[in-house]
Amino acid sequence: MLPVLGVDADDTLWENEERFHEVEQRFRDLMAPWSDGEATDAALLATERANIARHGYGIKGFALSMVLTAVEISDGTIDARSLAGIIGWGHEMLAHPIELLDGVPEALDTLGSTHRLLLITKGDLGDQLGKIERSGLADRFWRTEVVPEKDPGTYRDVLECHDIHPAEFTMVGNSVKSDVLPVLAIGGRAIHVPHTTTWVFEEPDPEELAGVDFPVVENLGQVAGLLAG
Amino acid sequence: MLPVLGVDADDTLWENEERFHEVEQRFRDLMAPWSDGEATDAALLATERANIARHGYGIKGFALSMVLTAVEISDGTIDARSLAGIIGWGHEMLAHPIELLDGVPEALDTLGSTHRLLLITKGDLGDQLGKIERSGLADRFWRTEVVPEKDPGTYRDVLECHDIHPAEFTMVGNSVKSDVLPVLAIGGRAIHVPHTTTWVFEEPDPEELAGVDFPVVENLGQVAGLLAG
Repeated sequence: MLPVLGVDADDTLWENEERFHEVEQRFRDLMAPWSDGEATDAALLATERANIARHGYGIKGFALSMVLTAVEISDGTIDARSLAGIIGWGHEMLAHPIELLDGVPEALDTLGSTHRLLLITKGDLGDQLGKIERSGLADRFWRTEVVPEKDPGTYRDVLECHDIHPAEFTMVGNSVKSDVLPVLAIGGRAIHVPHTTTWVFEEPDPEELAGVDFPVVENLGQVAGLLAG
Repeated sequence: MLPVLGVDADDTLWENEERFHEVEQRFRDLMAPWSDGEATDAALLATERANIARHGYGIKGFALSMVLTAVEISDGTIDARSLAGIIGWGHEMLAHPIELLDGVPEALDTLGSTHRLLLITKGDLGDQLGKIERSGLADRFWRTEVVPEKDPGTYRDVLECHDIHPAEFTMVGNSVKSDVLPVLAIGGRAIHVPHTTTWVFEEPDPEELAGVDFPVVENLGQVAGLLAG
C-alpha cells in the first residue's frame, strides 16, 4: 500500500481567498455612506470573530456576518433590498467557477503515482464537496474529508479512521496554522506551500512557531521532488 | 467484530424539527403586517426549496432563507433591525439545549452491547458535531459521519470508507426518505422509528414506497428486540 499524503484544498489547489476579497470590496462600497473602508473591514472582522464558533468557516456564515455588520454600521438604516443583495453575493460565491492554481492537475498526477491522496479541507460540507466536484479533481483523490476545524484532535481522528499512523503521514497545504502546525503536533510531517495572501484567521500564533521547522516549497509541483529527496 | 448499526440523529435521538416550528411561528408573527400565516409559510417554503441545493440542510441556510423571504414579502419595506433579529433567532437555535427523546441513552446502551453504533446525520458540519457533543451521547458511538445528503451514493461511500458490507448493515431513523429507502436501495436493512411530525422535504415520493417493506417501531427502545428476533 502506498503511503498517504494529505492535501489541503482552498488556496492550495484553487483560488479561494480572492473570492472573499472581491466581495469585501463590494461590501466596503455598499457601506461607504456610513463608514470608510478601514472601519468597515474592522467591523466585519469583529463580527466574523464573534461568530466563527457558531457559524464555522464558509460562505453562509460570511454572508450572515456581512448582513449583521451592515445593520450595525448603518445603525439600522440600510434598506432591506441591500441586505438581500448581500446574500445574493454569497450565492454568487457559492456558484463561482473553480480556478485551479497553476500546474495543480499535473502535480496531483505525479503525487498520486507514489501516494494515496487524502483531501482534507475545512468549511461548509456541501460547499466544499461541491467545489471538489466542480474542480474536476475528485478522481485524483483516494478519499476526502471535510472537517469543521483543523486542529491536532481533528487530524488524529481522521488518521485513526483511515488506519494511518501519524509517523507515516505527510500533509501539504498553504496554511501554517491549519495544515502544518497541528500535523507536526501529532507526529506527522508537513510541507508548506504558501499562497499569495493569508487570511488573518489563518495567521499562526508566533509563539507556536518558535523552534518549529518545516519545509516550504513554492508550488505543489515541487512537493514530489521534496518527498523523493 | 460486532455488526454495525447506523443511527440517525435529528428527531431520532433528540428533538430537532420542533426548534424550526417554533421559529417559523415567530416568522409568521413578524410577517403578519404583510402576509397571513399560510402565505408566509408558502413563501418561506418556496425560498427554501429554491436554495436547498446551495444552502444544504441546516440553520444557517434556514436563516438566510428567512431573511430573503422577509424582504420579498415586505417588498423591501421591512426594517433592517428586524432582519438582523431573524439572524439572531438562528443563533438561538444553534445554541439551543439538546432535548433527548425518551429512553434514548438506555436504548443506545443496549444497542451498543450488540452492535458498533455509527451515527449518520446530514446538515451543517459544525452544527451537527456540536449537537452530538452537547447531547452527552458522543461516547456511545463507534464513529460519526456528517453527510450533505442521505442518498444511496452517500450511504455506499460511508459504508465503503468503514469497510462495511451493505448486507451486514442496518440503519435506524425517523425519515423514510433519508434513513430507510436509500439504505434498502443499496441492499442494507432499515428500521423506521417515526417522529411526531415529518418535515415536508423529508416526505418520501409515494412511487418509491410502492412494493417496499420495512419494519416500523414506536421508539428506539424497541429496536433491540427487533434486531434480536
